[in-house]
Amino acid sequence: MMKRLPQEIIARKRDGHQLEREEVEAFVSGVVSGEFKDYQSSALLMAILLRGMTHEETGWLTEAMMRSGRVVKLPEITRPKVDKHSTGGVGDKVSLILAPLAAACGLCVPMMSGRGLGHTGGTLDKLDAIPGFSTQLDDATYRRQLLEIHQAMIGQSADMVPADRKLYALRDVTGTVESIPLLCASILSKKLAEGIDALVLDVKFGRGAFMANEADGRKLAQSLVAIASSMGQPTSALLTRMEQPLGRMIGNSLEVIEAMDCLRGEGPEDLMEVTYALCAEMLRLGGLEADAAAARTTLEKAIQSGAALEAFRQLVEAQGGDPRVVDDYERLPLTDHCVEIDAENAEPLYLARLDAHGFGQAACVLGAGRSSMEAVIDPAVGFELLKKEGDLIEPGEPLVRIHFNDATKVDRVVERLRLAIGLSPEPVAPQPLIVDRIVG
Amino acid sequence: MMKRLPQEIIARKRDGHQLEREEVEAFVSGVVSGEFKDYQSSALLMAILLRGMTHEETGWLTEAMMRSGRVVKLPEITRPKVDKHSTGGVGDKVSLILAPLAAACGLCVPMMSGRGLGHTGGTLDKLDAIPGFSTQLDDATYRRQLLEIHQAMIGQSADMVPADRKLYALRDVTGTVESIPLLCASILSKKLAEGIDALVLDVKFGRGAFMANEADGRKLAQSLVAIASSMGQPTSALLTRMEQPLGRMIGNSLEVIEAMDCLRGEGPEDLMEVTYALCAEMLRLGGLEADAAAARTTLEKAIQSGAALEAFRQLVEAQGGDPRVVDDYERLPLTDHCVEIDAENAEPLYLARLDAHGFGQAACVLGAGRSSMEAVIDPAVGFELLKKEGDLIEPGEPLVRIHFNDATKVDRVVERLRLAIGLSPEPVAPQPLIVDRIVG
Repeated sequence: MMKRLPQEIIARKRDGHQLEREEVEAFVSGVVSGEFKDYQSSALLMAILLRGMTHEETGWLTEAMMRSGRVVKLPEITRPKVDKHSTGGVGDKVSLILAPLAAACGLCVPMMSGRGLGHTGGTLDKLDAIPGFSTQLDDATYRRQLLEIHQAMIGQSADMVPADRKLYALRDVTGTVESIPLLCASILSKKLAEGIDALVLDVKFGRGAFMANEADGRKLAQSLVAIASSMGQPTSALLTRMEQPLGRMIGNSLEVIEAMDCLRGEGPEDLMEVTYALCAEMLRLGGLEADAAAARTTLEKAIQSGAALEAFRQLVEAQGGDPRVVDDYERLPLTDHCVEIDAENAEPLYLARLDAHGFGQAACVLGAGRSSMEAVIDPAVGFELLKKEGDLIEPGEPLVRIHFNDATKVDRVVERLRLAIGLSPEPVAPQPLIVDRIVG
Repeated sequence: MMKRLPQEIIARKRDGHQLEREEVEAFVSGVVSGEFKDYQSSALLMAILLRGMTHEETGWLTEAMMRSGRVVKLPEITRPKVDKHSTGGVGDKVSLILAPLAAACGLCVPMMSGRGLGHTGGTLDKLDAIPGFSTQLDDATYRRQLLEIHQAMIGQSADMVPADRKLYALRDVTGTVESIPLLCASILSKKLAEGIDALVLDVKFGRGAFMANEADGRKLAQSLVAIASSMGQPTSALLTRMEQPLGRMIGNSLEVIEAMDCLRGEGPEDLMEVTYALCAEMLRLGGLEADAAAARTTLEKAIQSGAALEAFRQLVEAQGGDPRVVDDYERLPLTDHCVEIDAENAEPLYLARLDAHGFGQAACVLGAGRSSMEAVIDPAVGFELLKKEGDLIEPGEPLVRIHFNDATKVDRVVERLRLAIGLSPEPVAPQPLIVDRIVG
């Protein structure tokens, strides 16, 4: 094929054609080399968002993005290498529980994570709350750790997937985030560059997720599984509801504490349900367990025996963190101040709505997340949910405990929380948390 | 309304909403100020191309673009001020004939034109062929000339319509040229900034035009007339066919010569038909003639009396050109060499196709137009069509005379011309040149 100009490739997608593999590759290499100018990339991204991409095109895009930088190979590791990725939610600390748990059950988990995005929290920000913990490991240390303790939780190094870094920044300011092919390529190019054998996805939908409704979440999950499978990567996805925050804690130190509670067998039911289900998928895809029921038994045993908590202690120690936090939560950064709020109801009412999006935004205002790229996170602050959707609330009963350091922020935070809380005189039927399982 | 971020405005158009007036204005002022980055503008341009704009939005866009720079007012001129704009064709030298002709019939023609674009010629490039002729006049000289000889043909000054200049350059390299709202806003913002009372449009369709088919040409013409009318500008459009080149000459000096032939009453029929029709519209919109038939009589008289040719002589002299060219074509830059080509037919055949696009591209290769932004035009070179579509061609009969300076280009040019010429054993019925007239 004659080499096409950027504007010719843009025009072909604009007119609704399937791009050829060479055109997709020219786009991605042009993004990295600068041959595709930012204004040409953004026009093509908008054309992709509005015209769509076939699974075949999305696969080419994913592969080209993955190959735009270093692709890790881990041949020295004999355990099945399986990772999990969540599309992002509020109170979602599953990774912190799942990595040591899976390692304790025989998998190797080479997990590369990101920072918080928008109103959702990020695994790296949570790990930073542990004194001394480093999420930047050099390649040799990383590989030695995977061999020794079968898990690592780090940020992606600068030489991996440069095309995604550039396109992600551009999409954020050009209204081109919400495209299923672009989301798929961004997620999968990063995960497939980790050198894993299998991938489990937690695709969230609802008020607190980037996909607002179940249908869009399902479409994204199906696309992710289809494309990863077509690239030879065993993959499955759980479609999970993200209406209220997951678990009871929101905030970086608080979520580390809740994750350790879970590893002790003292976690809240909803958080454990999602963690067990995702971890069972990992064991199944890794070939260690034949079905979900057997996997569940193995996972529960690893918690009860203390093996999972011990694996977390090893992880913290290996990455330079203070392992004493596991037995002494006071060693984590905590606030000096707390305040509890009630719902100002005059009669008993049911808690009908704990809007995860509103809680996530309030957490950013409080300092637990970023309001701008430059904002500094306070690891100590956050919310403790004393009630969850469906609970009956007596007059004056506290709903949320706010852990704060800066008293000047509390009024604004409370105002946002009140908008995020809804009561009802009618009992509220809980909706299933895990809606579907999509396999390749 | 709260001031929206660029990405929020982009997302609204992406999702198919009509933008509010304030959003359109924020876009245009942001393009000029730099608040809208190029990569944000191009994403919005692509969203506009694919989602469309209502007439109301396009009107707001046109007005905001017009007001992005200096808007000319010409209150000192008492004659009706009318201009013409063509969407661009091959061999289209109508402006050179029409401006002096309209001035000779009582109008004032304050014409601001552009350079050649793609395969089409530009009025400024043609005027540059006249020794000494300047298309850059300062404001005082321009206004004095309009008062004295009722016509001027210049390029747009740098302080006019800066938003269009910026967006046009961006559209050219991001596959966002072919959008009716964007074309309308670009054309009308420039013309309405001239301070005219009325506007006549020549909207071309066919092989040699930017709109390939009649339906698209009609849509563009209807939009242009509707939007200009909604902005209080009396406007009408002719929908004209651009399949073969207009007239017999292609090339800058050659087209100036053909224009002078027309002003002498010796022009080819097709070229005069379009010129008379457009000029009659101008007289009608300017309130000087009640109907097309009366206007036609007035125009023919101005040619027969020599008044139109005299007006052209005045124009050349006023803008610093050598007025002796009018009686001595040899004073124009001409080539030393000519070669004629035939169609290599063994038996008499009808000329079925003279592809205007192919001729336009061959003219660029020859040096009569630009192959790149930096290319220098040779005003002397070009093509003389010795036959037109429908003519019977005897074996060996020459079809095209090529005027050239650089012999090394001739082979490539002939090769392109042969592809642009088609013969048929069947007689070819000529199609009407003027297809419709669209009024506000």
